[in-house]
Amino acid sequence: MSDPVITRRTLLAGAAAAAGGAVLGGLPALGQQPGAAAPPADPTKAPGAPVAAVGQRSPFVHPGRAPVGETAGTSLTPLQDLAGTITPADLHFTRVHAGIPAIDPARHALLIHGLVDRPVELSVADLQRYPSATRVHFIECSGNGGAAYHAPRPDMTPQQVDGMVSQSEWTGVPLALLLRDVGVKPEAKWFLAEGADAARMARSIPLAKAHDDALVVWVQNGEPLRPEQGFPIRLLLPGYEGNTNVKWLRRIKLGESPFMTMWETSKYTDPLPGGKIRQFSLEMDAKSVITTPAYPERLSGSGWWPIRGLAWSGRGRITRVDVSTDGGATWANADLLTPLSTKAQVRFEHLWHWDGRESLLMSRAVDDQGYVQPTTAALRAARGPGTEYHFNGIRAWRVARDGAVTFEAAT
Amino acid sequence: MSDPVITRRTLLAGAAAAAGGAVLGGLPALGQQPGAAAPPADPTKAPGAPVAAVGQRSPFVHPGRAPVGETAGTSLTPLQDLAGTITPADLHFTRVHAGIPAIDPARHALLIHGLVDRPVELSVADLQRYPSATRVHFIECSGNGGAAYHAPRPDMTPQQVDGMVSQSEWTGVPLALLLRDVGVKPEAKWFLAEGADAARMARSIPLAKAHDDALVVWVQNGEPLRPEQGFPIRLLLPGYEGNTNVKWLRRIKLGESPFMTMWETSKYTDPLPGGKIRQFSLEMDAKSVITTPAYPERLSGSGWWPIRGLAWSGRGRITRVDVSTDGGATWANADLLTPLSTKAQVRFEHLWHWDGRESLLMSRAVDDQGYVQPTTAALRAARGPGTEYHFNGIRAWRVARDGAVTFEAAT
Repeated sequence: MSDPVITRRTLLAGAAAAAGGAVLGGLPALGQQPGAAAPPADPTKAPGAPVAAVGQRSPFVHPGRAPVGETAGTSLTPLQDLAGTITPADLHFTRVHAGIPAIDPARHALLIHGLVDRPVELSVADLQRYPSATRVHFIECSGNGGAAYHAPRPDMTPQQVDGMVSQSEWTGVPLALLLRDVGVKPEAKWFLAEGADAARMARSIPLAKAHDDALVVWVQNGEPLRPEQGFPIRLLLPGYEGNTNVKWLRRIKLGESPFMTMWETSKYTDPLPGGKIRQFSLEMDAKSVITTPAYPERLSGSGWWPIRGLAWSGRGRITRVDVSTDGGATWANADLLTPLSTKAQVRFEHLWHWDGRESLLMSRAVDDQGYVQPTTAALRAARGPGTEYHFNGIRAWRVARDGAVTFEAAT
Repeated sequence: MSDPVITRRTLLAGAAAAAGGAVLGGLPALGQQPGAAAPPADPTKAPGAPVAAVGQRSPFVHPGRAPVGETAGTSLTPLQDLAGTITPADLHFTRVHAGIPAIDPARHALLIHGLVDRPVELSVADLQRYPSATRVHFIECSGNGGAAYHAPRPDMTPQQVDGMVSQSEWTGVPLALLLRDVGVKPEAKWFLAEGADAARMARSIPLAKAHDDALVVWVQNGEPLRPEQGFPIRLLLPGYEGNTNVKWLRRIKLGESPFMTMWETSKYTDPLPGGKIRQFSLEMDAKSVITTPAYPERLSGSGWWPIRGLAWSGRGRITRVDVSTDGGATWANADLLTPLSTKAQVRFEHLWHWDGRESLLMSRAVDDQGYVQPTTAALRAARGPGTEYHFNGIRAWRVARDGAVTFEAAT
């Protein structure tokens, strides 16, 4: 692997001539939207459109979140339509338990009470006068990857395999600052976070997380949170499973022990072999997903193709992503294209020369805790077939000799 | 300035009780949108809305770009509505010279010709098979700040003062890789970049920039470029004045010298005192803007207030931002909240204890080239009253005793 970039770039000379019609890494949702006017044959010969106060996507680009189930409470980010590391706010995955509440931010408040010296109710404006922090973090639903684990199908897209993970630049106030102001009593060891939706979704969090890196945020990707992401405020617990990042946050209560809400007893616990249950499995383990090539792409011919994807860890920084094109027999270091920051996604890329034979593409993430993303077989052996959360095993894309790409659970 | 964070945080205890009704740093565009249904008094008692494939903003949040002039070719980013460092793609400032062209990406191509060994026409799909790069950079129109320089008014907002700067995470291919494939002849020293709009906007760029950090990008903030930002591809020249980042890029021609297009002779040149003209002033100098407190905000009372803003340099990394609350008599180091990456904006913050007296707030950016943002008086002395581009002098916000905040050119 000495100087792989130079080698690949040298060999890439001539890639332009070999390139076919496939469109990768950011533009797959092509084909003009129905009803849109056809563009002129030569755009330099036609007057252009005026600029609007708020922009719209090109009629040739129409990504969408895919709903899961009948209630439309869950929707998946179209990972195959995206590049870089930022998920557009209107395409961030959603998981809501009683719909999206309509909240007037001027009437919303955060109550902090329980084992504190000075209980307080803070308006959004109050929160915004505190020192702020801006950080890039992913949020992943702990159920992400479950469909691919339990019922893999060759025609699953990256969105269907792993679309319950998204990443944003978040801005808010460190929870530790709020807690210092209210004065936490020494016996407090946990806190409850509760949302203002009709489900009043609530989770218990170890107090140490508040002192580490928890934020109460009101900004996502530069602008106020979107309604389905918790407008006007949500809890952000970097690296913790999605639903602990409580949306529409209205209450934090300090206590001596977990509050044992239904959201951490009947749900969001991991059944294990032998009838045991894993509870408060809060941190999301290191994981990766190849977003191209992936179903339903078809490679137009042998030659150089970029393998691109995302890797992340809830326990720290990604330090390495390995890519295999032979089903895990051999591995190569992928290039990591974006900053390696803690509890954040990195975009990886590996230039692959496809020789036209059947191939099995895999990626494997490694984090700064020394944790290596396990095989799906190892995950299955440890957790059993009935587990319902934390699916971070290695998956694969099979490339057939005709270039067709299909999903494979890679058990 | 020893340990200013701890000191300020300690003093901030009790800020919650003192906080008034003003809403800062991400939520100023409040007030419900006309026609929207009133939210329920208690959102936990009402069913929530379903999740859509593509999300919408809260009816209480409605930022917009402000058009400039009659042609709607220029629009300004609402800096006062934003926080963090990412500008939402649909709020990125625009400057178009013949409207927004409608382009079918499947029929768009980039021609590279002139002083090259192997001229080539590359489709978007071709470009996407090259090794890619993802980087965060600002784009600033070289005319940004001109209105505040030539005709300052106390009722200017941050959007009106400096709204022709925005920042995105961009993904594309290094131009250097494309040029290596076509083989640049030794006598080539400049290249022309031309867009596919009806203005066929074209600029001449020193070839060294291509070998440094120029990209041909197709992704902005994770998704395909928006039409007004150059869909399907644009040139990205980190740190260079906005219009050199040619949108709807269709042609790159290598040559021995500048091509002297009307976009670099009759326009985008800087008149100087004595009748001289500065040409090819490509790099944007270090600059900063306070986005809160700013007009039309009104501080509700004395106490701790965050002063927040953005700083950037087209020549390198921001290393320091100074903030003054007394019109430049004394300065304090602001906290820099986000990564200090090259040719990128950083969000700064300074917690200020307002004593209720009239105050004049200023910010001053310093970059890793040792460049210090000049006073507007110094800029005016060097460039004269007739200059039309590169307005990076220090400006101010005046806080009156009643808390009203107004703009001041701070000459």
